[in-house]
Amino acid sequence: MSQQPTRRSTNRGDRLRRAQSVCGDGKICPPDRATALLEAVIEPFDRVAVEGDNQKQADFLAAALAKADPARLHDLHMVQSVLALPDHLAVFERGIASRLDFAYSGPQSRKLAELVATGSLKIGAIHTYLELYGRMLVDLTPRVALLVADKADRDGNLYTGPNTEDTPVISEATAFRGGIVVAQVNQIVDRLPRVDIPGDWVDFVVPGPKPYLIEPLFTRDPAKVRDQNVLMAMMAIAAVYEPYEVQRLNHGIGYATAAIELILPTFAAARGLKGKVARHFVLNPHPTLIPAIEAGFVDNVYCFGSELGMERYMSERADVFPVGSDGSLRSNRALAQVAGQYACDLFIGGTLQIDAGGNSSTATKDRITGFGGAPNMGADARGRRHDSPAWLRAGREAGETIRGRKLVVQMVQTRQPTGAPSFVERLDAFDLAAAAGFALPPVMIYGDDVTHVITEEGVANLLLCRSAEERAAALRAIAGDTEFGRAGSAGVTEDLRRRGIVMRPSDLGIDTTTANRDLLAAQTLGDLVACSGGLYAPPAKFLRPSVAKPATADVH
Amino acid sequence: MSQQPTRRSTNRGDRLRRAQSVCGDGKICPPDRATALLEAVIEPFDRVAVEGDNQKQADFLAAALAKADPARLHDLHMVQSVLALPDHLAVFERGIASRLDFAYSGPQSRKLAELVATGSLKIGAIHTYLELYGRMLVDLTPRVALLVADKADRDGNLYTGPNTEDTPVISEATAFRGGIVVAQVNQIVDRLPRVDIPGDWVDFVVPGPKPYLIEPLFTRDPAKVRDQNVLMAMMAIAAVYEPYEVQRLNHGIGYATAAIELILPTFAAARGLKGKVARHFVLNPHPTLIPAIEAGFVDNVYCFGSELGMERYMSERADVFPVGSDGSLRSNRALAQVAGQYACDLFIGGTLQIDAGGNSSTATKDRITGFGGAPNMGADARGRRHDSPAWLRAGREAGETIRGRKLVVQMVQTRQPTGAPSFVERLDAFDLAAAAGFALPPVMIYGDDVTHVITEEGVANLLLCRSAEERAAALRAIAGDTEFGRAGSAGVTEDLRRRGIVMRPSDLGIDTTTANRDLLAAQTLGDLVACSGGLYAPPAKFLRPSVAKPATADVH
Repeated sequence: MSQQPTRRSTNRGDRLRRAQSVCGDGKICPPDRATALLEAVIEPFDRVAVEGDNQKQADFLAAALAKADPARLHDLHMVQSVLALPDHLAVFERGIASRLDFAYSGPQSRKLAELVATGSLKIGAIHTYLELYGRMLVDLTPRVALLVADKADRDGNLYTGPNTEDTPVISEATAFRGGIVVAQVNQIVDRLPRVDIPGDWVDFVVPGPKPYLIEPLFTRDPAKVRDQNVLMAMMAIAAVYEPYEVQRLNHGIGYATAAIELILPTFAAARGLKGKVARHFVLNPHPTLIPAIEAGFVDNVYCFGSELGMERYMSERADVFPVGSDGSLRSNRALAQVAGQYACDLFIGGTLQIDAGGNSSTATKDRITGFGGAPNMGADARGRRHDSPAWLRAGREAGETIRGRKLVVQMVQTRQPTGAPSFVERLDAFDLAAAAGFALPPVMIYGDDVTHVITEEGVANLLLCRSAEERAAALRAIAGDTEFGRAGSAGVTEDLRRRGIVMRPSDLGIDTTTANRDLLAAQTLGDLVACSGGLYAPPAKFLRPSVAKPATADVH
Repeated sequence: MSQQPTRRSTNRGDRLRRAQSVCGDGKICPPDRATALLEAVIEPFDRVAVEGDNQKQADFLAAALAKADPARLHDLHMVQSVLALPDHLAVFERGIASRLDFAYSGPQSRKLAELVATGSLKIGAIHTYLELYGRMLVDLTPRVALLVADKADRDGNLYTGPNTEDTPVISEATAFRGGIVVAQVNQIVDRLPRVDIPGDWVDFVVPGPKPYLIEPLFTRDPAKVRDQNVLMAMMAIAAVYEPYEVQRLNHGIGYATAAIELILPTFAAARGLKGKVARHFVLNPHPTLIPAIEAGFVDNVYCFGSELGMERYMSERADVFPVGSDGSLRSNRALAQVAGQYACDLFIGGTLQIDAGGNSSTATKDRITGFGGAPNMGADARGRRHDSPAWLRAGREAGETIRGRKLVVQMVQTRQPTGAPSFVERLDAFDLAAAAGFALPPVMIYGDDVTHVITEEGVANLLLCRSAEERAAALRAIAGDTEFGRAGSAGVTEDLRRRGIVMRPSDLGIDTTTANRDLLAAQTLGDLVACSGGLYAPPAKFLRPSVAKPATADVH
């Protein structure tokens, strides 16, 4: 037998012994020894997962790792959902890590592109969330995982609170391959409200000197929803939700989808759609969903993560949200991605660019952003076998004879807030691929998975198109006053309109004079609070005067 | 506010109070009160999940439910992975349940078809595993879940042992929607080897009067591998594994794929492929994988479930299998399906029927079998974004310009053991759909997802085909002496062969005179035991004289 049966477990024992010299017996490590602990349990060339997605962050452990001695820790291979913090890049700048596999890099996307250009960092691949979790179990298993949770007890049991997110899958991948699991927590207590991660899976707990960082990324202030968002939301309901009878869905985090949430109790209710559409969501607990929930539109919401300020509301709406017997939400990003992929009939989201083939991307030449989970849900789930009216109708329209189709809708204004056209002949993603040495351009959603595109000009139903030329013509017809749109032909557009491939608001029975903010069931955050019966508590940052924010892609 | 905030939790409290009158305080319920407990916590029209897949079964709880009084419990909606036991059907025959959503029904497939025909049972849908889990989280959430585990402590913490399987996802879906979770266990102990399911998620534990039922479904006796299986296995390696450099894969449970496992250390090694192919598996711990593991071919195996007799071997091969610090495997069907879908370059499996479009199915008119997990893995994962040599090459061959393709291989002899042709002009699935009232025929793997088909006659590379006619011709070329095959044209076949679309063994450098059992690294179960250093302990049933078995589809 050539196999050494205990290679990993022997090595794990070595690491644990080194750790003992840092923080003694037991699982609790004082915060001032965090870097020493990481230097003890991590070895050069290890794959290391730092937990953090677009909500909570293991920020203290990320900082502790960034302070490590590069003579001791070097050539680490970071495997992480999101690159969000300066410390996530500092490990590369300081020579501690050299390789990165990830899924999303919001605020750090420009700096990341610079580090790739200078050779400080080599990207393995940009993944989607489910794909990255899958690889953590197969060929990118972390040797050490740095997690984040709310509370721990002395046995290492973890309580995550509502933001369970990625913790279960990262800890399972690591703990059951002889890896070392270290968790940063806000508090060590004698008895946890509930156990989210069993202590058997956790080797060390570090109480952080301050609460871990968490961002309320899914809060959209109704005051910022514009009339054009309302118009597009009306079209989405009239052209997609209603005719396809869409009951189960996932959607993005932009103002356009926030507008949909906010006109369910008004526009959709007036069309008699209560109980007929949008009953089951796979979605974070968006505050803008409160009016639809209170109106009884929504049966339930399964959550990737949580949202700051929604805790009490969710606890009191345990019929709608996945809440434990302790009264707090349990979210789960991996399972929510599965639910979004397989149990939803519709994905609707936004993008920065879309080309004549319907391919869309949020990548630009100088920003390596990644796509998070959108591609897991914004694609036909070819392993799905159950039918539904939406799925069957979409399949029929596409000319399928033995299966249905998932509805994948891109909602985008013809121009971005910067004035740049959203419709382009060639995605910037091709330039990025060339610059960064990727084998293929980072496309977010492939054109042949997209079924509808909605702009303020109208709706293109790509399911009914029978050729690449027809698809391109349908997109040009709704691309408005852009170079891409002007390349279309009025005659062709009218033909597509007669055939129901292109729909203008009037074709959908929408009176555009009513397409304004008056349709919103809540006009302000204060309205949301009132609608929640005072249970929703917006974070302080939203109550301060607003500051300009960069455009955000839809990330789940 | 129209919402009643505590509808579910109030109802949950009512159920728990009723249960208290059955089994008092605490979580332990004596086995003789199991039916009374279920009558207390279940209400008519509830959705109820009975755990059980193609390995372990909550058999005692299934029997306890089947004994319930139909005057108290009726119109239940069963949501379960697998319909395997007579008691799973008895609840329908006795009028306790009326509706079924499931993923697979092996031994009960004929009886199930009968019950559907007589109207005793209405099928919601036949799902794939991931799809069913997704729906459990969204619109088919169980109100009560009946689980199975090895051991529990008095707080309700569960230890599953190596067959963790579906337990985490079912318990999570149920416990966090105000549901009731009941677990059957073999033993109640003071201290568990490890915690797989936290006690907070479990309401009641019933010690079963005997150990739960578990089937070793993934054990293939090397003695039963035939020469033709070896030939097909050689072609799979020469035509797919080698040229595409397939390192990460999932495959089926038939003798053809067992043959692949058994010739990795011989045929593949002789071709210099060690370390170049088949390094990472997403697979149950097949005993026939032992020689490849011992030869150092396999880096690791991530597991859906476990396999009886492999416990000690896996424990001693913790570098290869996902083993906890307690020394036993932790499997996870939901995560393994994700890993199989997103982190593998190849799925290779078998079928009963395949048509001219390459669509395959194991459904026949009088058997409603379902497909388990094969479709989750036997499909292009359109949400995948990372590249690999295999994925890129498959994409190039298919004419893709912006993405790769997953390799999906169907390996099937031209005739089934019954003599029935495997290639047909029309799948029986169409008749089944008509008879059972399904909207669409139950296709296992859609033809446009299949990249290669392998028979004893040769290999058809469908990626290189550019029309439906060409695909059909390629399939006819390898369909041998069947009606389907005879409808082909020798001239067309020769043209396809020149273009590399059709490959005969000789085209692959395979000397068919060597294609026999001598190539197997183990000839018998005894050889596997020896190769494992005595760590593998085949279940007694395999050591008795063999009995004829029905043909088995590939189910994960």
